[in-house]
Amino acid sequence: MSARVLLPWTDIEVPEGLEAAYYDGVGSPPGDLGEVEFYVLPYDRGPEPPKLIRELPSLRVVQSLSAGVETIVPLLPEGVQLANGRGLHDLSVAEHAMALIHAAQRDLPRWFAQQTRGEWVREHTRSLADSRVLLVGYGSIGQAIERQLVAAEAVVTRVASRPRPDEGVHGVGELPALLPEADIVVLVLPDTPATRGLLGAEELAALPDDALVVNVGRGTAIDTEALLAQTRTGRLRAGLDVTDPEPLPADHPLWTVPGVVITPHVAGGSASFYPRAKKLAAEQLRRYAKGEELLNLVER
Amino acid sequence: MSARVLLPWTDIEVPEGLEAAYYDGVGSPPGDLGEVEFYVLPYDRGPEPPKLIRELPSLRVVQSLSAGVETIVPLLPEGVQLANGRGLHDLSVAEHAMALIHAAQRDLPRWFAQQTRGEWVREHTRSLADSRVLLVGYGSIGQAIERQLVAAEAVVTRVASRPRPDEGVHGVGELPALLPEADIVVLVLPDTPATRGLLGAEELAALPDDALVVNVGRGTAIDTEALLAQTRTGRLRAGLDVTDPEPLPADHPLWTVPGVVITPHVAGGSASFYPRAKKLAAEQLRRYAKGEELLNLVER
Repeated sequence: MSARVLLPWTDIEVPEGLEAAYYDGVGSPPGDLGEVEFYVLPYDRGPEPPKLIRELPSLRVVQSLSAGVETIVPLLPEGVQLANGRGLHDLSVAEHAMALIHAAQRDLPRWFAQQTRGEWVREHTRSLADSRVLLVGYGSIGQAIERQLVAAEAVVTRVASRPRPDEGVHGVGELPALLPEADIVVLVLPDTPATRGLLGAEELAALPDDALVVNVGRGTAIDTEALLAQTRTGRLRAGLDVTDPEPLPADHPLWTVPGVVITPHVAGGSASFYPRAKKLAAEQLRRYAKGEELLNLVER
Repeated sequence: MSARVLLPWTDIEVPEGLEAAYYDGVGSPPGDLGEVEFYVLPYDRGPEPPKLIRELPSLRVVQSLSAGVETIVPLLPEGVQLANGRGLHDLSVAEHAMALIHAAQRDLPRWFAQQTRGEWVREHTRSLADSRVLLVGYGSIGQAIERQLVAAEAVVTRVASRPRPDEGVHGVGELPALLPEADIVVLVLPDTPATRGLLGAEELAALPDDALVVNVGRGTAIDTEALLAQTRTGRLRAGLDVTDPEPLPADHPLWTVPGVVITPHVAGGSASFYPRAKKLAAEQLRRYAKGEELLNLVER
């Protein structure tokens, strides 16, 4: 009998020697999963799909389509390999960061509100061009954002957890000196003890008047109360795809601060993800069928 | 007595030998303008500043800060030179085109509406990455848009009034063959007899379902009734900074079509324009003082 693989989409190429079953994470999983060796987790479908890991006695590989797998690791039985979705979301997240920046700089919420009233009232806006952007987090997503910022003729300064002088990357320790010179700060950081509260009251106070704080990483990197204090007065602006807490409660004061635009953690989930995810899944199945080493393996 | 120049901003460098007076286009012009030889028109201040041209008996040069000067030409006395503001708005317009594209692809109007209700509801969106973009109008603005689209990993096809095979630019005559393959069409065209109604019922019908039509050129390039018919059914989407008529009347049906985002002709007017405009004005004054030929002269 051929080895079975459990996949979220029917249009993933499956090599000979593997037999596919499908589970998209919405309906019920198919019965008879005793032979499943390779499980590609449905993406962004809540807590049920990961729970299925425990129901698969023949499991040898879990392929997550997320970059962050911290919630999957504790569910893995001994000896099961885990591969992550590193890179699949880079473009999607970078693009959403650009969308938030453009929306804030070019006053889109104002025009869209005018549109609902049929109001043609014009005013000049800020630009992204010429803006000094502090890009905090310089992995593959940060680099994708940088390419788009540079094409828009913004002036980018690179910052990461550790300085990498060869690449012109500053360390976060240099933020106190860098923040006063930034028109826009873009955060693309994972949630780690080192990134929590990175932008607190002191750091936000160091930004110049009217600066824009954009976050497409994790909400915990910004002290929400401090951000609220600085945006409520109109001194700073913000474009947030992630918040702390998340989801942001319906009565949270951040929702209604003028100059703050919020999207509900949708940066990673856009159309450009799917072809990349399917391509990765197909390549991993090919490698699995041939006994080759998998890509994106997570050490634990 | 030194020659006088009339300027819209006080922070333009004025060479020795010229004496500056100031008129920002909002208040009244200063009295005693009989000696003004060089007039830098206030930008985007309505019909009053151009009318002043007729009140300046010593006038020799009008510097417009707009690219299009069709409304200025008829006002010019014989022998007065006209220079335009070609290039000053390129980045601003390109950036706004990107803002409209991102807003439409990433569902920003939906998230901003949710924000007003404190609603954290998530859904995957379209992408700009991988989208096939037909860029119609391949001058300096089109090229600035292209650089940003390419950085966002969209796939660009270039179109202009006349084909330029050496640059890979198709002519508008090829649109019938190109439109069915476009996810996004971006129009960056001046208002000329050749561009009026370029996208009519037939052309819009040639676009695939769910395609996005973006216009940052002139509203007349699109047949508004035809666009209305195709967007009302949800078959096409649109992101418009310019409309026909303009301003769009408060009760125009286009305002309320889902999938249509409208900004009130604000693409050209953003912060990145000002330093470029002041730099051009200073350079022109320098040339004028030295008797050198001016830049951006308009033949008439």
